Amino acid sequence: MRITLLGGTGNIGEGLALRWAPKHDVVIGSRSAEKAEEAAISCESRLRTEGITCELYGEENAQAITHSDVVVLALQYQFAIATAVAIKDQLGGNAIVISPVVPMTKDGFLRYVPADKYGSAAVEIQDILSNNNVVSAFHTTPAARLIDLKDKLGLDVLVCGSEQPKATVMELIKDIEGLAPFDAGPLEASYMVESITPLLINVSARNRLKNSSIRIIGQSIE
Amino acid sequence: MRITLLGGTGNIGEGLALRWAPKHDVVIGSRSAEKAEEAAISCESRLRTEGITCELYGEENAQAITHSDVVVLALQYQFAIATAVAIKDQLGGNAIVISPVVPMTKDGFLRYVPADKYGSAAVEIQDILSNNNVVSAFHTTPAARLIDLKDKLGLDVLVCGSEQPKATVMELIKDIEGLAPFDAGPLEASYMVESITPLLINVSARNRLKNSSIRIIGQSIE
Repeated sequence: MRITLLGGTGNIGEGLALRWAPKHDVVIGSRSAEKAEEAAISCESRLRTEGITCELYGEENAQAITHSDVVVLALQYQFAIATAVAIKDQLGGNAIVISPVVPMTKDGFLRYVPADKYGSAAVEIQDILSNNNVVSAFHTTPAARLIDLKDKLGLDVLVCGSEQPKATVMELIKDIEGLAPFDAGPLEASYMVESITPLLINVSARNRLKNSSIRIIGQSIE
Repeated sequence: MRITLLGGTGNIGEGLALRWAPKHDVVIGSRSAEKAEEAAISCESRLRTEGITCELYGEENAQAITHSDVVVLALQYQFAIATAVAIKDQLGGNAIVISPVVPMTKDGFLRYVPADKYGSAAVEIQDILSNNNVVSAFHTTPAARLIDLKDKLGLDVLVCGSEQPKATVMELIKDIEGLAPFDAGPLEASYMVESITPLLINVSARNRLKNSSIRIIGQSIE
């Protein structure tokens, strides 16, 4: 698959690029083609230090998303919204868009602040793109842990969206060793997942932890 | 400590009664004194089958909360709100009130629906009681697992509230083997915890699980 990470340096985009590159065609997009290429080369060299040889591509955003099967908006809320508006016309009609986006504000402690009209960043992005293939995921996956290729993870990922694109994204999550996907409902349920991000940052700050995440502890139904 | 569970049959109130009874004076409250006594006797007999002998008390709500250090509103949202209004005048000024309450609705999938004015059930209850000792906890603790005394749990509990009552509740959580408390911020952060309950019910339904809960996976800061 061709997977484009928009926002691929120092955050979850970089982590996903590193983890997916051995199995997929990974493209890092940026507003500057030069920056994108630098990021791709930096990922390649990081993978080489782990004994993994593979090629990543760096391209200007509009070019990067062309013919992509999956586009990840690995950007802060305001940039993610602006980028969704900017790429709307270039995006292929069947492309799956992954939103790990969380609108947050700080007021003593971190809060989740859903857009009034939409309830969640994922639904807002879906509306901007007029695309029913928006899938919400990776809100509780710490970027620093993904980027550290020696980290075995052991984390769960809650995924919201329509059934078909969600199934594809859940398979992509299984491609990353140490991550397990859980179906958390339609995209309209995304606000309940998005609000876990500020919650975990608050929990980290108050319990002397960093890179907090969650695991789902359930009992199997036979 | 004298701990009163309002709503102590077949739900999280019963589970907490069973788990706290060996260490604390546990009172089960009900609108009917008879029902409350039956519930207390049923808990005693369940504990005896595990080789634990201790006494629980069953009293009508107003009586049950008198002189209590901690009152748990183990009730569905609408009953919790009505009960808060009803007990307001009998409740001691220093009593800690624990809210595991979650306003939910079903519309294809379960949603968290905060009261417009308050943002969370816990803040609404605090406002009704004019009590600054409301602490929000146990939203992700499955009742069925607490009630099963053979279950070793191994779950985390997110706790929101003012510092002093929250510290007391965190100690009470540690009194239950297999539960670990995490400070999740002030009561105003409770909505981010409350919304995990419907999320987990959705996750259970879609991933062939029951009694889903969470663990916090963080890295310690030295």
